Amino acid sequence: MIKIIVDAMGGDNAPRSTVAGAVSALESDKQLYIILTGRRNDVEAELKKYKFDEKRLEIVDCPDVIDMNDSPTEAVKRKESSMMQAYWMLKKQDDVCALVSAGSTGALIAGGQLILGRIRGIKRPALCSPIPNSRGTFTLFADCGANAECKSVMLGQFALLGSAYAKAGFGVENPKVGLLNNGTESHKGDPLHQEAYKLLTRINGINFYGNVEGRDIMLGECDVVVSDGFSGNVALKSMEGSAKLVLGVMKKELSSSLSSKIGYLFMRKALKRMRAQLDFDKAGGALLLGLKKPVVKSHGSSKPESIANSVHNAASIYRNGLVGSVEKLLSEADLDAITGDTDER
Amino acid sequence: MIKIIVDAMGGDNAPRSTVAGAVSALESDKQLYIILTGRRNDVEAELKKYKFDEKRLEIVDCPDVIDMNDSPTEAVKRKESSMMQAYWMLKKQDDVCALVSAGSTGALIAGGQLILGRIRGIKRPALCSPIPNSRGTFTLFADCGANAECKSVMLGQFALLGSAYAKAGFGVENPKVGLLNNGTESHKGDPLHQEAYKLLTRINGINFYGNVEGRDIMLGECDVVVSDGFSGNVALKSMEGSAKLVLGVMKKELSSSLSSKIGYLFMRKALKRMRAQLDFDKAGGALLLGLKKPVVKSHGSSKPESIANSVHNAASIYRNGLVGSVEKLLSEADLDAITGDTDER
Repeated sequence: MIKIIVDAMGGDNAPRSTVAGAVSALESDKQLYIILTGRRNDVEAELKKYKFDEKRLEIVDCPDVIDMNDSPTEAVKRKESSMMQAYWMLKKQDDVCALVSAGSTGALIAGGQLILGRIRGIKRPALCSPIPNSRGTFTLFADCGANAECKSVMLGQFALLGSAYAKAGFGVENPKVGLLNNGTESHKGDPLHQEAYKLLTRINGINFYGNVEGRDIMLGECDVVVSDGFSGNVALKSMEGSAKLVLGVMKKELSSSLSSKIGYLFMRKALKRMRAQLDFDKAGGALLLGLKKPVVKSHGSSKPESIANSVHNAASIYRNGLVGSVEKLLSEADLDAITGDTDER
Repeated sequence: MIKIIVDAMGGDNAPRSTVAGAVSALESDKQLYIILTGRRNDVEAELKKYKFDEKRLEIVDCPDVIDMNDSPTEAVKRKESSMMQAYWMLKKQDDVCALVSAGSTGALIAGGQLILGRIRGIKRPALCSPIPNSRGTFTLFADCGANAECKSVMLGQFALLGSAYAKAGFGVENPKVGLLNNGTESHKGDPLHQEAYKLLTRINGINFYGNVEGRDIMLGECDVVVSDGFSGNVALKSMEGSAKLVLGVMKKELSSSLSSKIGYLFMRKALKRMRAQLDFDKAGGALLLGLKKPVVKSHGSSKPESIANSVHNAASIYRNGLVGSVEKLLSEADLDAITGDTDER
């Protein structure tokens, strides 16, 4: 049995979407056991809509809910909230395997660091998004927003975390890792990225491809693209904005004349497949990597399908031993020896 | 008569595209006079293909050509190259108004700084790209790659440069300026962006909108988005990559079945309009702002139409007195007084 906690109150459509997604995941994977944290009455009202295996689902009543506007450091103190209660259970109960939440990203990162804790040796967890690419698969993009300020050693660790996930999550054997920079030549970038480039060429256990540019995240050769969290956030949102604009312009143009409306009827299926391939959320949420147990961040506007995908993703990376792989890679890489960094935060 | 220099040897398709674009611009604007710098024989061979007003075009023979792989600082020393010769003429001849080049961006920036020179008080020129947005107009994005390392005062100057261009180039009366950051709240960002936010709220003469995210460059409210050159390069290339992927997936899906192929026939015009609206190059090249005269950077893969657009753009910003506007805004803003910076580089 794989026990997954779902923060039932996290996200814009909670608890409707979270409960529907959890029930759907339970139905399609008989090995799952789901714990829903949230206001019991609200969660039960939603659960009444569905048939499910009651032996594999429980509710933990939490009177408090973290809001998107709450300060992350303040949020961490609210033990009775659905998100922080979930973190405390994840920390204290050995049989609880992973957490899924569509709630505030900032609070989820803070709770991960301050309650659950990092894998020994990891300086900062990274928020990692699977980005649809031109090969029809996903590029893991790390860090896409958890750490606005980075040191090169953190970028080195993101490379290790990303490699471990590309193996455990995507099943890629020897994942290629690129460094997001302002050009592909080896001397490119500000001092941070120049230093990170040198470090990445020296780390054991990763397959370093070299510098890549923004366009390569979606078009390129790499399985993992490593970035500082500031540029990572900028790149992620730029890609989303651009894809949204293109799809928006397309929609407008396709309804602009009778001829194009007729054309649309013939192309509906093709356009639907296209939207599915470009769905940033299809891969089942972003990952908060570097913590002692898997934490999956589902999009704030997640629909039931996205929540279910996130639950399956959490179960899958637990099954594939992600945390163990990270620990192994980390000890083999021996980053501190390379960087001369003895600061064991 | 408006004299524009075109670097005839710059870009992947030179001198074929540059000559064709220059001739086309000459035809549609009778006030133009064009100077082509480049290998006389090559340029003349291209010119033979067209009819044009010979009194308004001259060739300046330059035996040397700067390559995309040449180091910018070395390139600047090559006075006999088509690009640097153009810069020397722009600097020394009062009646030469502006420069258009599709050559190496790095060399163009270096030449601009070291040969032509900056507007008094401007610390660094910014590379500014007009980005198609959801309003069907363009957002000016500055800096998108000239300065990988920035100080907050530089971001303040980019805001002034961008505002001046939005007026002179786009005709926007009181352009809204956003700061690209990793979130919209005022406290967001690393120290550079936090400091830049505070500075932007205090500068006279700009209409500061606040922080914006990557998606807002294409979807948002602002006429100008200011960025450090590192994130700017990442954002620009991420947007291009994303748009390219979406259009690529669309093309594939539209030819995937008989039904979608039939649909395509009905929608050709709509799809053509869509591609035109999303053309990153339509606005006539990127601008190198902050120099003593207008310099327009056309895309390396520019076709004749893009070169012609760049020439028209250069003529238009010269006519609208861009450099004068920048100087006026700069003196009104009195940035040095705000920042306490007395370093008059």
